[in-house]
Formats: sequence, structure tokens, C-alpha cells
Amino acid sequence: MIARSETTVRPQRLADLATPCLLLDRGILARNLEIMAGAVRRRGVALRPHMKTAKSAAVARLATAGQAGGITVSTLAEAEYFAREGFRDILYAVGIVPVKLDRAAALRRAGLDLTIVTDEPDTAGAISAHARATGADHRVLVEVDCGEHRGGMAPESDRLLAVGRALGAHCAGVMTHAGHSYACRSIAAVEVVAEAERLAAVTAAERLRRIGCATPIISVGSTPTALHARSLAGVTETRPGVYMFQDLFQVQIGSGVPENMAVTVLASVIHRRAAENRVVIDAGGMALSKDRSTASAPRDYGFGLVLDATGRQSFGEAIVERANQEHGVVTAPTPLALDRLEVGTLVRVAPNHVCMTAAAYDRYHVVEGGDAVVDVWHRVNGW
Amino acid sequence: MIARSETTVRPQRLADLATPCLLLDRGILARNLEIMAGAVRRRGVALRPHMKTAKSAAVARLATAGQAGGITVSTLAEAEYFAREGFRDILYAVGIVPVKLDRAAALRRAGLDLTIVTDEPDTAGAISAHARATGADHRVLVEVDCGEHRGGMAPESDRLLAVGRALGAHCAGVMTHAGHSYACRSIAAVEVVAEAERLAAVTAAERLRRIGCATPIISVGSTPTALHARSLAGVTETRPGVYMFQDLFQVQIGSGVPENMAVTVLASVIHRRAAENRVVIDAGGMALSKDRSTASAPRDYGFGLVLDATGRQSFGEAIVERANQEHGVVTAPTPLALDRLEVGTLVRVAPNHVCMTAAAYDRYHVVEGGDAVVDVWHRVNGW
Repeated sequence: MIARSETTVRPQRLADLATPCLLLDRGILARNLEIMAGAVRRRGVALRPHMKTAKSAAVARLATAGQAGGITVSTLAEAEYFAREGFRDILYAVGIVPVKLDRAAALRRAGLDLTIVTDEPDTAGAISAHARATGADHRVLVEVDCGEHRGGMAPESDRLLAVGRALGAHCAGVMTHAGHSYACRSIAAVEVVAEAERLAAVTAAERLRRIGCATPIISVGSTPTALHARSLAGVTETRPGVYMFQDLFQVQIGSGVPENMAVTVLASVIHRRAAENRVVIDAGGMALSKDRSTASAPRDYGFGLVLDATGRQSFGEAIVERANQEHGVVTAPTPLALDRLEVGTLVRVAPNHVCMTAAAYDRYHVVEGGDAVVDVWHRVNGW
Repeated sequence: MIARSETTVRPQRLADLATPCLLLDRGILARNLEIMAGAVRRRGVALRPHMKTAKSAAVARLATAGQAGGITVSTLAEAEYFAREGFRDILYAVGIVPVKLDRAAALRRAGLDLTIVTDEPDTAGAISAHARATGADHRVLVEVDCGEHRGGMAPESDRLLAVGRALGAHCAGVMTHAGHSYACRSIAAVEVVAEAERLAAVTAAERLRRIGCATPIISVGSTPTALHARSLAGVTETRPGVYMFQDLFQVQIGSGVPENMAVTVLASVIHRRAAENRVVIDAGGMALSKDRSTASAPRDYGFGLVLDATGRQSFGEAIVERANQEHGVVTAPTPLALDRLEVGTLVRVAPNHVCMTAAAYDRYHVVEGGDAVVDVWHRVNGW
């Protein structure tokens, strides 16, 4: 029997880590949390951070410090993980299917204040029926479409009221998500989407109240709209997530600056191809994800921007141009500084879309000051 | 403390599974293994299956049944996992960096016949120095470039000999990978690439032998070239991987037929949008990956082809057109059969690139006959 090779003494420097691995800069994280806390405080609403990006209790504790304490999750596995970690007020913000109601009810019975969402009259009926049959006290938000056209109903639709009626006493309010704010390319455009998001939520809540539904929660949010909404009047809470870490895509849509990217992938150079102005690193599609969201942004970073080991300097704007499973092919518009990119050299890759990239890892190596590894924080993945 | 919710009684039918999850059809897997075993046997070389796709000991046992027993892996975490599972002859086929040599040496000391690869004279020197300093008996293949231009050296290059000399007695042969066979769009084109792959390996081995290096292993392989090479004369082994499962991309480059796709993602419909001819499923970018390899294939399947719960029928060629984190937006060129796609309906999604999709899961639900879940097989992920 061969033992699992895992370092038992906590590594102290980047060179002690096995590549590829995920780095989280604690100082940058703290700054990002402060920026969002300020933005939300100024608008007088609660912050219910979406943990779908970080999926880490350590990060959630920092993100909820000084806040009401509620969080948002994207899977029931996350809800169960954060419940085990002591969080009590959790919104599972993906439309429920009836087969998942037993699992949701088990969490509520165990003391978790779990809120679920739906936009389907049939599902709303199934939730009420499940509650009658099992005694579960489900608490449900009605999902409203504010223009993204993914889930949710138009706030002025008849279906909205049908869902409200089918939920009856289980209705706890409304939620909407302006995911189409990601298509905005100016702050003025985000402001317009943010107002549509607010208005859809407030309008839907008002209509539900008129038919007797309780709507204590009026929930909106995405990182761009939470940062740039001119008003959140009538809204009770916002649910941004990626603001904690930032990434190349968010920076380009005005949600942050490059210096605010808190998460990078640490990789090693494994081949050099001087004649072709390329090096290959041990971070490919598995380590970076195949997300190509910057392909539709002003600047296309391939599969990520290559930085030096401190995360502070680029190599003449070198990017990961090609990503095979465990190989990332790095090239640049100018000659690569190959003397600084020998085999074994450590680099960091800033990701296009940090939610997708982080999903390949079960932990963060927490860094400070460029080279010091000060902690390891675990993540939850899967469903 | 809330217990982790995990089914303790093994589910028996698809409807008992929490979505999204990964399904593996055992009958199709067996057929795919048989096709490759036959192809390799006819060419008189050993099959060293690449486990980077399946990452599962249960699959590896089937894939090596009747073979020499060696396998290929893409990470040291895989090597450690398969060693724990009793595999003894493992090739780690990604260029080594010196910092990983301690971990490789520990595996050899524990009795594993681990082979590593490099294409860098400096790394080859570091391997020999590490062996002298620690007593490790590293066994190394020299990586050759047969036209993919990722890792490896040209077979006629001086560098090839420099690596061989620096390795000395640690040299165990050569390896090359015709990854560019994925760009072929006909079997005739694959045959040409396969011959280039064979010739590069054989040429490099011959040159190394002339300077006194031992080359018992002459290793080539990708699924397309392993299936379609006209000759593997002079080669000792081939390392295909994705043939076990197949996917939408492999089917389009002639490596298989749609009926041979063994792995699908089971998902539930969570929203319907009749007016827009769409439904939304609970398999998005996390569950399917953001791989878009079919964008460059004859037929673009978005983020995957949507099939019914048996995996045998499509919904008028419906595909996952958009993939957010936990939402997949399904649409089709013809009106969707919305009466068959109610909220809660189970569907299967055939992936573009199964290596990337499977990486999101820690297990396969093994199915037979469309609806029977007969086993659970674990996977290893990470590094």
C-alpha cells in the first residue's frame, strides 16, 4: 500500500507547492470585500454574498463579517457544506426540482433556514403538496426574469401570480439576477441593467403582495449591478459573488481593476520552444478550465494571462494560447523572455472566469506578500 | 452538526439519482474496449491505455484485461491513486519538472515501476543529478515532437541526443503523441499523421541507440492514430485514452459512432420557456465544462447534445446552447417537444469532450439497459 503523498508540514513558500495549484491572495480578497461592503452599505440593503465562486467557509466568514450573515449557494452540496460549517441563513438560488425537496426539507429540519426558488406553477404546487405530505415548512422565493431570459417569469405575467397562489404561505418573496449585466461594456450600461433588475423585483413583489403573498425578501444582484446600481430602493438584499476574487473578464467589464484579481493558478514551465517563441506550462484545460469568456471582451486573453511568480508582472503580455488537458502553450506578441522562463520556473496564470477555474481545485493556498504561503482553505465542489 | 446527505442504499434507477451526475454505460464501455483491443492486437503492439479520461481503477482494470497491464497517467495524483489500486507499471506522460522528482522517486521506492518523460537537456541533467544524490533509479522516456508542436524535440535534432546523453542509463526509450490527429477530418488524413507519429518515434529511438542509450520502450498514441494507423512497425506500445468513452468530437473525427458514446451527464429540466422554444436544465458550465471543441468540428453541438433519459433519442437535435454556472439553456432548430420536457424530466447530455466533462465529478454511476444503475465507480481528480 502506497500512502497518499501529501505534505504534512505546511509549506511556507511558493516553491514548496506542487503545481498546478490555486493561490488566493488574502490582502486582495480583503480589499475586494471592503469595496463591496461599502457599495452595499451606501445603498442601504443587506449583502447576501453568493458563495458559488469561492465555495469556501473561510472566505464566507470574511465575506459575511459585519453583514446580516445570510449567504447564497448554487448547489445543495454547497448548502450542506455551509450548514456543517455553521452558516444558518442560506438561499439556494437555482430553480428547485421536486426530487430535491426531500434533501431541502432535511436541511430545514436540521435547523437550517434554507430558502429555495421556483418559477413554475407545477413546481410551486409540488412544493406545497410536499409540505402537506411531510410537514416540511418550505420557504420559497419566486424567480423573476429581469431581462436575462434564463430562468424566471416576467414581473407582469399571469404565471407569476399562479406561482404565488400555488405557494401560498410558503412564499417568502422574490429574487432576480441580472446576468445580462455581463454583456455590458460601460458603467452607464450596467446602471441601466441594474435599474431594470431593481424594477422587475419590486414590481413582482408588489403584485404578489396584492394577492396576499408575503414578500419579506426582495433579492437582486450580480457583481456589476451591485457595484454600479444608482438606487436599490425597495430591494432588501443583493447577491454578488465573483467580486470577492475578480478575474480577467470582470476587470474588462468595469467591475474591478487588474490589481484586484485575488486568485491565480500557480504553474511550472515544463518545456521551452525558443524557435517558436513559446513555452509550455503544466496548467492546461484541467487547471485553467476551457472558459473563453474573454473571447467576447475587448481583450482576448486566450485561456489566461501569464504573470511572474509574485503575480505582479506580466511577461510582455504573454497568454496561454492553447490548453490541452495538462499542457498550456504560452506565447506572446513580443519575444518571450526565455531566460526568465526556464524549465521549473514558477508563473501565475490569471483566469478568464474564476468561478470555472477554481472548480478544478479542492483547496486554496492562501498567500501574502507575493511568496509567503500562510494558510490552506478548503473548497466544496460537486452536487 | 448536519450530516452530509449521501444515499446509503445504492440507487437502482436513474430517478433515484441527484442531478447533475455522471453516467457510464457499462455495455458501451465494453464494446469500445473490445474495438481498441482488436485494433492494437492486429498491429502487434502493446496497449498502454491512457487513464487521463477515465481516472478510475474500475475502468483501468477492464481496459487492461488481457493486455500487458501498463497504463498511462497525466498527473502524479493519478499515479499515486493507481499505485494504491494495485497497478504497477505506470507512465506519467507529462514533462517532469525537477521539483516533482522527490514525489516520483517515492513512488519507485514503494515498488511502482514509474516512468517519467522529459525533452529538456537541463531537466535530464537534473534527473541524473537527483538519482546520484538520492539513489533514485529514475526511468525516463525522451519526448519527441511528431508534428503537434507542443512538447518534445524533433527526432533529427541535436537536442534529442543531448537529452539522451544527460540521461545516460536512466533512458528507457522514447514517446510521442500525435495530438494534431484531432485536427484531421478524414481517416486518410489520420493515416498520414499516424505514419508521421510512428516514424518520429522510430527515428528518434534509432538515433538514441546509436549513442548508446537503451530504448526498450517506443511509445506512440492517440485514439485516432491508434485506431487508424496502417502500420506500427518498430513501435512497442500505443497510449490511446478517450476511445473508452468517446464523445461528440471524437465521433465527428471518425474515431467512433454516436452509439459508442459511453458517458453522459444526467440532468433535470428546471424551467420551461415555451414562447422562446427553450428549457433550462440543471447542468451548466460546471456540470458539462466550458469545452467548445465541436465549434471547430463539422457539427457544432454548443455545450452538448440533449438526449432522452435512456440516452437513445434526441429531442429534435436539441443542444445546450448556453451554459451558465449551474444552468444549461437548451434549444433546438425545430420546436421542442415541451410536453416531454416538463420540470423534473430527466435528460442526458452527451459531452463535446468527455475528458473535460468527467473532471467535474468524483464518481460514475454505472448504468445498463437505459435505466438500471448497477454500480458506482470512483474517480481521482486534481494533482
